[in-house]
This record gives sequence, C-alpha cells and structure tokens, in this order.
Amino acid sequence: MSDRPATPLLDTVATPEDLRRLPEDRLRELADDLRQEMISAVGTTGGHLGSGLGVVELTVALHYVFDTPRDKLVWDVGHQAYPHKILTGRRDRIRTLRQGGGLSGFTKRSESEYDPFGAAHSSTSISAALGFAVANKLAGRPGKAIAVIGDGAMSAGMAYEAMNNAEQAGNRLIVILNDNDMSIAPPVGGLSAYLSRIVSSREFLGVRDLLKKVARRLPRPLHTAARKTDEFARGMTMGGTLFEELGFYYVGPIDGHNLDHLVPVLQNVRDAAEGPCLIHVVTKKGKGYAPAEAASDKYHGVQKFDVVSGVQAKAPPGPPSYTGVFAQALLAEAARDDRVCAITAAMPAGTGLDKFAAAHPDRFFDVGIAEQHAVTFAAGLAAEGMRPFCAIYSTFLQRAYDQVVHDVAIQNLPVRFAIDRAGLVGADGATHAGSFDVTYLASLPNFVVMAAADEAELVHMTHTAALHDSGPIALRYPRGNGVGVALPEVPERLEIGRGRIVREGKTVAILSLGTRLEEALKAAERLEAQGLSATVADLRFAKPLDEALIRRLLVSHEVAVTIEENSIGGFGAHVLTMASDQGLIDGGLKLRTMRLPDRFQDHDKPERQYAEAGLDADAIVATVLAALRRNAVGVVEGARA
Amino acid sequence: MSDRPATPLLDTVATPEDLRRLPEDRLRELADDLRQEMISAVGTTGGHLGSGLGVVELTVALHYVFDTPRDKLVWDVGHQAYPHKILTGRRDRIRTLRQGGGLSGFTKRSESEYDPFGAAHSSTSISAALGFAVANKLAGRPGKAIAVIGDGAMSAGMAYEAMNNAEQAGNRLIVILNDNDMSIAPPVGGLSAYLSRIVSSREFLGVRDLLKKVARRLPRPLHTAARKTDEFARGMTMGGTLFEELGFYYVGPIDGHNLDHLVPVLQNVRDAAEGPCLIHVVTKKGKGYAPAEAASDKYHGVQKFDVVSGVQAKAPPGPPSYTGVFAQALLAEAARDDRVCAITAAMPAGTGLDKFAAAHPDRFFDVGIAEQHAVTFAAGLAAEGMRPFCAIYSTFLQRAYDQVVHDVAIQNLPVRFAIDRAGLVGADGATHAGSFDVTYLASLPNFVVMAAADEAELVHMTHTAALHDSGPIALRYPRGNGVGVALPEVPERLEIGRGRIVREGKTVAILSLGTRLEEALKAAERLEAQGLSATVADLRFAKPLDEALIRRLLVSHEVAVTIEENSIGGFGAHVLTMASDQGLIDGGLKLRTMRLPDRFQDHDKPERQYAEAGLDADAIVATVLAALRRNAVGVVEGARA
Repeated sequence: MSDRPATPLLDTVATPEDLRRLPEDRLRELADDLRQEMISAVGTTGGHLGSGLGVVELTVALHYVFDTPRDKLVWDVGHQAYPHKILTGRRDRIRTLRQGGGLSGFTKRSESEYDPFGAAHSSTSISAALGFAVANKLAGRPGKAIAVIGDGAMSAGMAYEAMNNAEQAGNRLIVILNDNDMSIAPPVGGLSAYLSRIVSSREFLGVRDLLKKVARRLPRPLHTAARKTDEFARGMTMGGTLFEELGFYYVGPIDGHNLDHLVPVLQNVRDAAEGPCLIHVVTKKGKGYAPAEAASDKYHGVQKFDVVSGVQAKAPPGPPSYTGVFAQALLAEAARDDRVCAITAAMPAGTGLDKFAAAHPDRFFDVGIAEQHAVTFAAGLAAEGMRPFCAIYSTFLQRAYDQVVHDVAIQNLPVRFAIDRAGLVGADGATHAGSFDVTYLASLPNFVVMAAADEAELVHMTHTAALHDSGPIALRYPRGNGVGVALPEVPERLEIGRGRIVREGKTVAILSLGTRLEEALKAAERLEAQGLSATVADLRFAKPLDEALIRRLLVSHEVAVTIEENSIGGFGAHVLTMASDQGLIDGGLKLRTMRLPDRFQDHDKPERQYAEAGLDADAIVATVLAALRRNAVGVVEGARA
Repeated sequence: MSDRPATPLLDTVATPEDLRRLPEDRLRELADDLRQEMISAVGTTGGHLGSGLGVVELTVALHYVFDTPRDKLVWDVGHQAYPHKILTGRRDRIRTLRQGGGLSGFTKRSESEYDPFGAAHSSTSISAALGFAVANKLAGRPGKAIAVIGDGAMSAGMAYEAMNNAEQAGNRLIVILNDNDMSIAPPVGGLSAYLSRIVSSREFLGVRDLLKKVARRLPRPLHTAARKTDEFARGMTMGGTLFEELGFYYVGPIDGHNLDHLVPVLQNVRDAAEGPCLIHVVTKKGKGYAPAEAASDKYHGVQKFDVVSGVQAKAPPGPPSYTGVFAQALLAEAARDDRVCAITAAMPAGTGLDKFAAAHPDRFFDVGIAEQHAVTFAAGLAAEGMRPFCAIYSTFLQRAYDQVVHDVAIQNLPVRFAIDRAGLVGADGATHAGSFDVTYLASLPNFVVMAAADEAELVHMTHTAALHDSGPIALRYPRGNGVGVALPEVPERLEIGRGRIVREGKTVAILSLGTRLEEALKAAERLEAQGLSATVADLRFAKPLDEALIRRLLVSHEVAVTIEENSIGGFGAHVLTMASDQGLIDGGLKLRTMRLPDRFQDHDKPERQYAEAGLDADAIVATVLAALRRNAVGVVEGARA
C-alpha cells in the first residue's frame, strides 16, 4: 500500500459545509489535496481513475457553489464520483472502494444523502435531475438539480430525450457537459464531431466574456424570425446552437480545470439563469497524474498501482479471458466469411472487438453509447444478408430490449448477440450484473439462447452463431477468465438445442447451463464421496431446450437440479415448464432449480458473490441432499411426506 | 360498404414499375386516385387514416424517383403505409387491412419485397435504413436506403442515436422528415418547437431555390472556423442547423403535397448528394379528406366510416374500457393526494391521461415518444417524494426496460407502472401485443406485479399502487372493455401478495392471473357439468406470490392449472418454481401452466386470438381433462403411468 500523501487542507474538510466556509482563493489548494488523496486511494484499491481525476476541480466548484445535498447533484455513470465521495463524508471509507462491504464504485442512494440518484449505466442523469427539478417546482421548494454528463454519454438517445424535455424544469435544471473527448474509448458520431468543432474553433471563454454572456439573461427564445436571427448569431459566436435549439441556454466552452472560471460561472448560472442551462466544460481525463495522462485509455479502469511509477499490479497469470477468446473466435469467423461484421456500443476494448476493428475496419461499427441503434442497425444489416454480431454486455443489452423484440425477434432476423458479462460481475456490483438475459431472451419466440460453460464452448458457440441464418441467436458468457481447457483448433458447429453429458452417474442429475459447470462437477465429486452417483449435463441451450435429454435425465435419476447464473424465469423455469407440460411431475419428481436470488447483490469478490447467491458446489450438494432429505453424512432424515 | 370510387389511372398501375412509366405530369392525377382509394378502403376496414392521407404525394414521388424494391424504402411506424401498400401489389387485399388473415396495419417483411423492414413501434427507421445502406456499401451495390420518419418519432432517443451515426452510410442514406406537427397527439419538447420555428420563420422553398441548393453539392463540413461560419450562415438562411451539426445535409422545408417540388428535389438528392441527406417535408395529416382535416386527431385511428359524411361506426355499447376506468381511478387518487402525478410517452388519449392533463396540468407530463426518459424522470420524481404513475403500454415499456431495472428496481424507488394493452391486442397484431411484461418485471427483485381481472379490480389496484411507497409496483390491464362488473364506490387497498378465491370447489383448482378470470369461471361451470368440482382463484399478484394460498390450492385439489395472458417465464413459471422450491412436486403434482404460445400471433379478432393461443374456456377444460387423463365425457382414459 502506498504511503498516504500529506493533505493538510483536505484534512479540515469533512463535508461540503466545511468546503463552503473556505475562502475562494484556497480552493485550488483543496483541489490539489483532493487529487493526491484520490490517486493514493485508487492506487490501493484499483477502480476508475482517469474520470475522477478529470473532474477534481469541477467537484470542488460544484459543492462550493451549490447547496448540496439540498441542491441535487447527479453524476452520470457515477464512476467519476470518487472525489465527490471523499468530499461528502466518505473519506474514511475511500480505501474500501469496490471491496466487499465497502463503498460502491458508483454513486448510490443508500450510501449518502449527497448521492440523490445512483448510477452506473450511462446517460440517465438529465432525466433524473429533471425529476428532482420538477418535484421541487411542484412543491415550491427552491432547490436546483445539476446533472454532470460526459460527452460520450451524450450520444445515448436517453440523454437526448431528456434534453428535449428540459423546458419542464425551468431554471432549476443545470446540465454540465463534461467534455473530455473520451468516454471509455474515443467517442464517435456526429455529436462528437460537433463538440470538437466548437472546442477547436475558438479559445476558451474568459471569465469576463462568460459573465457578460450570462448576465444578459436572455429570455426564453420567442418564435419569431427576428429572435431566430439573433439565435443563430449567438450560435455563430458562441457555438452551442444544437443545445439552444433543444431549449437550453448554452454557456461555454470553459476550462474545467480553472477554478477562477468555474466558480463565477456556476454562481452566475445559479443566480441568473431564466431557463434550463447547459455549461460546456472541457476537461482532461487523467488530469494531474502523468502516467494517466500519458496512457491511451487515461487509466479508465485500473488495478492497484504504484503511485510513483504508475505501474499497475498484474493480474495473476491464468487462462485467457472469455472476452479475449470470443474476440479471437470472431476474428476467425470473419476471416472465413466476409459477411461477418461486428457492432459495439462504445466498448471496443471491453468486448474485445478492438482486434476486429484493426483487422476489418470496414466491417466494424462502434455506434457510441447507443445500444438501441446498435441492435436495429444490426437487424438492417441482417435483412440485407450480412452476418452481424452485436457484442453487448448483458446488463447493457437491457437498453435495447424492445429492439430485440420488435426489430429482431418478430422479424426473425439472424442477428447474433454476443452477450459478455453474463451473470455476476464482482467489483462492479448489482448495476453491472448480467442477471436477466436468459429470462428476457428465452421467453421470445424465434430466439436461440446459448450459454458457454467454458472457453472452448464459447469458440463452438461463436462458430454456431455465425452459421445460424434462420433467426436470432444469442451466446452468453461471463466476465473474467476461462477455466483453462484447451481451445479447439477447429470450431465445431453445435446442433441447435442439443446438450451434452459431461459425467455419467445414476442417482443425481445436475443440469447446468453455462458457467456453473465446474461447480457442478465439483459437487458431483462430493456427492460421489457420499455414495450418491451423479450425472452432470451441460445443456448449452436455454432455448430450444434439449427436451429428449432433459426428459431422460429427469425420469432416470432420483433427484435433478438445474443451475444457471440467471434470475428466476430462465433456464430452470423452462425446464420446470417442460416437465409440467409433459406431465413428468404428475407422478412425483424431485426437481430443484438453482438460480440467482431474488435480491440485488452488492459488489464483492466473485467467489463470495457465488456463495452468497447459493450457486457454488457447496450449495449444489446441500440442495441435492435437502431434496433427498438426507443430511450431510447421507442419513435419510425421514420418510416421504 | 361504400361504393368503390372511380380510379381510372390507378387502375393501370399494379406496381411501382408501372408508376415509373407514367409521365411526370400525370402523377397528380394518380395521387388523387390513390387518395380516393385509400379513403374508401379504410372506410370499409377502419384503421389508421390521417397519417396515410398525409403522405399520398410523398408515396407517389418516392416510388417514382427511387428504384424500389432495390432501393430500400423504410416507413417509420408503418401505419402511414396504406398508400404504399396499394401501389406495391397489395391493392387487391387492401380491404382486408387489419382483418384476420388479411394485410397488416403496418409494414411487414413477409407481406412484400417492397417492405424491406417491418415496423409498428416508432423511430426505428433510420437505424434500419443505415443497416441497408451500409450493407450495400460493403457489397459495392448501388442501392439507396430511404427512411420516412415523422416529427413525433424524431423525439425518441433511438432516432437521435441513428442520426448520430448517419455518416457511416455516405450518400446511400436519405431521411425524409415528414413534419405534420403531430404524431398521435400534438408533439412536445424542444425539437418540436425547433421544427415549428423553421417552418414558421420562412416560406417553403421553391423548386428553383432547392435545385440551386442541392446542386451546390457541398462537401462534408471541414473542421475549420471558416467552414463553421459558412455552416451557420446556411443555418440562418435555411434552418436545419441541428441536423447539419449531426452530419446531415439538410434540405427544406418543402411542401409535401406539391409533386412539382417533391419529384425534382428527390431526384437531385438521389443523384447529387455526397453524404447523408435529410429532406424536411411539411405535410398535413388527414390531407384531402375534409372530415379528417377538421378532426382534432386528424382521424389518426378510426372505426369503419361513411365516406361521404365521415361518420364513424359506433362501437357497440358495453362496459367502460379498462383505459377509461384507470383514468377515472387515477383522477380520484390525484384529487385525494397532490403527490400523485402522471407521465405518458406521447399517448395522452391512448392511456386516458388526457383527462388527468385537463384536471391537473401541473402534475401531468407528456414527454414525447421517449419511454426511457419517462421512466427515469419518474424515478427522479419518486426519489423526491412524489407518487408518479408511468402509464405506458406493455409493448412500449419494453423500450424502457433498462431504466426499469437500473433506475427503478435496483434503487427500489416507488414508481407506479400502469401497463395498458397487456396481453393480446387484436387488430394491431404481434408488434403491439403485451406478451412479456409479467416475465420481464416479475423476475426483478423489489418489484410488485399485479394484474387486474376486471375493471373493479383495476380501481383497487390503482389505489393500492398509489399508496405503495416501499418500492416499484406495476399493474397490468388489457386493451378493450371491462367485463361489466360494478365499479366500487370506494377503492380498496389490497394486501400486497394476497389473492382471492372467486369460486370454491374440490377437484380442480384454476389459478388465474388477470384477464382470463371470466374464461376460468366459464371453464369451471363446464367442468362442474362433467362432475368435476372446480375452485377458481384470482391471484392478483404475479409477485410476490400468495404462497400460502397457492400451496393450499395445489395440495388440496387433484389437478391445478395456472392461466395468464403472458409468455413463458411469468406467473405460471413462478408458481412452478415455488412448488419445486418447496418440494410440493416431489410426491406428484398435477399442475399445468397455460400461457401465450411460443410464437408471435398475427392480428385478428381478439376471441380468435385467444382460441389460437389456447387461452379460453375450451382450452382450460381440455387442459384439465388431459391432466386428469379423461376425455370430454369424463371417462378416465387409462391408469396412471
């Protein structure tokens, strides 16, 4: 662990109230302390670094100018909120970030009254802030609502929907556009180009210009040609017409690291704005920490690191990640077939598609944070004969659920969904867990839903998906590393809806879908040691089910257990439904379904999350024994009811 | 049925190829014929009228100028595509619109090669067209892709996401913004105000100006201040800066009923555009049919009507609609409690909230076609102590699934979801069916999910939701009219997770969730007539389940059946899971789940859809008898297996 830096001024600031008592000329010093403290903390814990470093001054200025927590400060995504956490009474726990029982890596309502709205997925802040602003307006309370949103997050439709409704808030809404020309990857699309044009075409506004501009306090645009001319004239000199057209008063661009500019501008907007206001602040991701500033990803998400050198702790050596295996497998498919193309929503590295982008730039599409568009765009490609893979994390695919239903499933178009981060995700916690995809996809007609039990299976499934032209197909796989099996030289095309027996036994059948196969095999060993012979099957498909295999396993074993890393309503529910439809339960059937629990699980180490969820070998053994009414040493506890 | 109008020129046009052989000066006459044919057809069938009438000239011009079906014409929503259907080989079936076995009321891939991409939900067209355009680009094919999208649909984030990616298509993408200042209701928000400013601030461009403008063929904007000045100068004279900032070349506004303007402009854009182009066309909803032009909703959706008078067939008298009952119930809640507020995504009349808007304009929010924003905005309101009701059709709530999970469920915020059109929806077909909400909501921790069995229940559930402050709660109810029960004078607050016995019996238990209760009672009568005494329960809650009641019913009856108007993975799956978790199936349990089938059902009369789905009294009786292995006269067919 690094030595703690000296932070004499920060040590006197426990809450924003303390901060607001400081003279303005000491804020620079406070910001410097805050930056050092943040670097030290993240060096200890790992986590999101670059984003927080970019908003140190902004965080100080916002709490200085606004009356938090009565004014509502909503950080979009929330991974840039570590400095905010340090300033809002959580400094004593900042070195527990993302650890089990510790602070969340995002904003979270249950953590602090200074987090009025939790986040983690992008682009929700303006909508939420509007809710606060309107509620205050209705109640006649004075409070403002401030959304801080990055330029990348602005590419999501949701942000645009909210901006389109900004007028409802009157002057209670302030949007800070934190423009660092970078979300996780460099941003894409027309909006990004537009912001670059604003920033590159002129100097930052000095504080004098800004004050003059804000002090003008222009009334809301009137619908006359005269007003319109004025508007465009302002646009020409100031930039920002796009936001003004949507009903905002635009101020900027201003230097987000210059407190002498930030503070007076925020004060003036707070006091003088007559309608919703957008302040365009330009910041540098990783600001003030040389190794981060120099890195291409600006240390977006880091392991623990040495503060002096910036060298990050290496992950222990191990099998390749599922993401990496998928990326290689897709590259192989693309090499064989020029109809294969790949789509990501602003996650080229996270999905492994950066390799695809380098090899096949023409068939690679990063659409920005725009999952809805990604899916329907892929449907259009599929309708025209391409073989598109949409690589989207399970939790983010939720953003495009209607497009999956309406544009893909109903039209039965062969879009391939590569669903990364399916299941529990460790330090990122509940907001990033991929808990529902089997449930929300397997209930859709026409869909094929696969789950990879190991990295070799993932290669086969990628190949199977590439060749599946008769309708939509999804393959889910988890965060983290594979289990260490050898990767196939030549991928196999799996038969749709056929599972496989991995281990033959007689008394207990464990029907596994996806990642829990290893635990199922461990459980089988332990059961064997207790005299209970166990079959383990990897069903591979949540839809269509391998009905013949399942029926055979259910009727030929004394007890059967399904297991999946997904909520209720998924694989287990489908097996139960099949067993009920076919009357297999009529005569008695010891069948249990193991699944994620009916609660959102906080961030923790994966193995602890699995234990908490009851999805490890211990839990399987316990479930089997309970179903058999035996205790752990195999004694039957009682006669059948 | 009305007499068919005389349409001599249209009679000679079977396909767009025929149309393209006409001299340009006869297109006006063709458009007039087409309009008369459309009015006559919709007079016979009912359906969407105003939207189609507004695009008659545009339809003629697009097929005249573009090489359909090789050029891909994608109609957003698709309910304005009746003239398109008449011109593309479907005139002989146009009087089967929305009837069982007949033409869909939307575009549909399986109907015609001229429908490259089906629609029904709003705002998908630009994404899909981009898919076609990019696929053509990759294959080196010349085809263009044309998206026709209304100004209302432009308020959805998905359209913005697609526009933000338009550059990928090069000049293969053409977006026609069909601006009739009206989607279903008058549009709201900043974008709408912006478009109004453009249209009101200047005359329509004459064809000469337009040709001059298009002929300039400006290259893609360069990132220099000089270029920027030019851009704003163009914006000032032309309007459209917002679209140009996103990477489009903007042309307009032009009169969408003037073929002498439309045709040359489309030709020039087709031949001369160097990048993606947006043509702003101003049309009049209901154009050319006086009764529609005069109506406030422009005859958006109509019953059969008399063509001469415009008088629509009256719906047969009957109980009030569920929508109307909900609207009244919510008004009563709002009168009692000023924290109750209401949110709709562009459906004030469809959800019944127009009454709320009139009574409580300050607590009513129409956010435009923006379900994502609607839900997170509601979450913000709830976080600040309001009691928001999001009234969204089941199928459209899919658009906000991630917001439901991430902003509402994870934060356990008390947003109330009033889910109209849950279940099968008759003439609107598969795209509008509310088939999945129980599955995708009941799998979420923290959620309460209710389904109303009749209109009195809906009143109780609205009241229950209003008072439920401990977390999210949803109430689902179907399209159409109630069953005719008396409405309660005073609503009852239901106990969360408690069902009710509606009919007591001994042998058969029917566990109904929601709308199929009447059929369950009918089935019980029929079973009784066969000597099988039946209990019928209305479970009311899909989550939390009334476990005590369910357990009692399962163990005390010989056979049990669940029924719901929802897909696999919902109520029935939860009952099975509970029965499995508790070991109730171990000793044998005749339990069957009745649900929507694993296929998308086409539009038809509701009662035929229910029969096809196997969700009527006949199907319940058959399921029970099959489970009991008896035939229809009650003879046991064989011994137990």
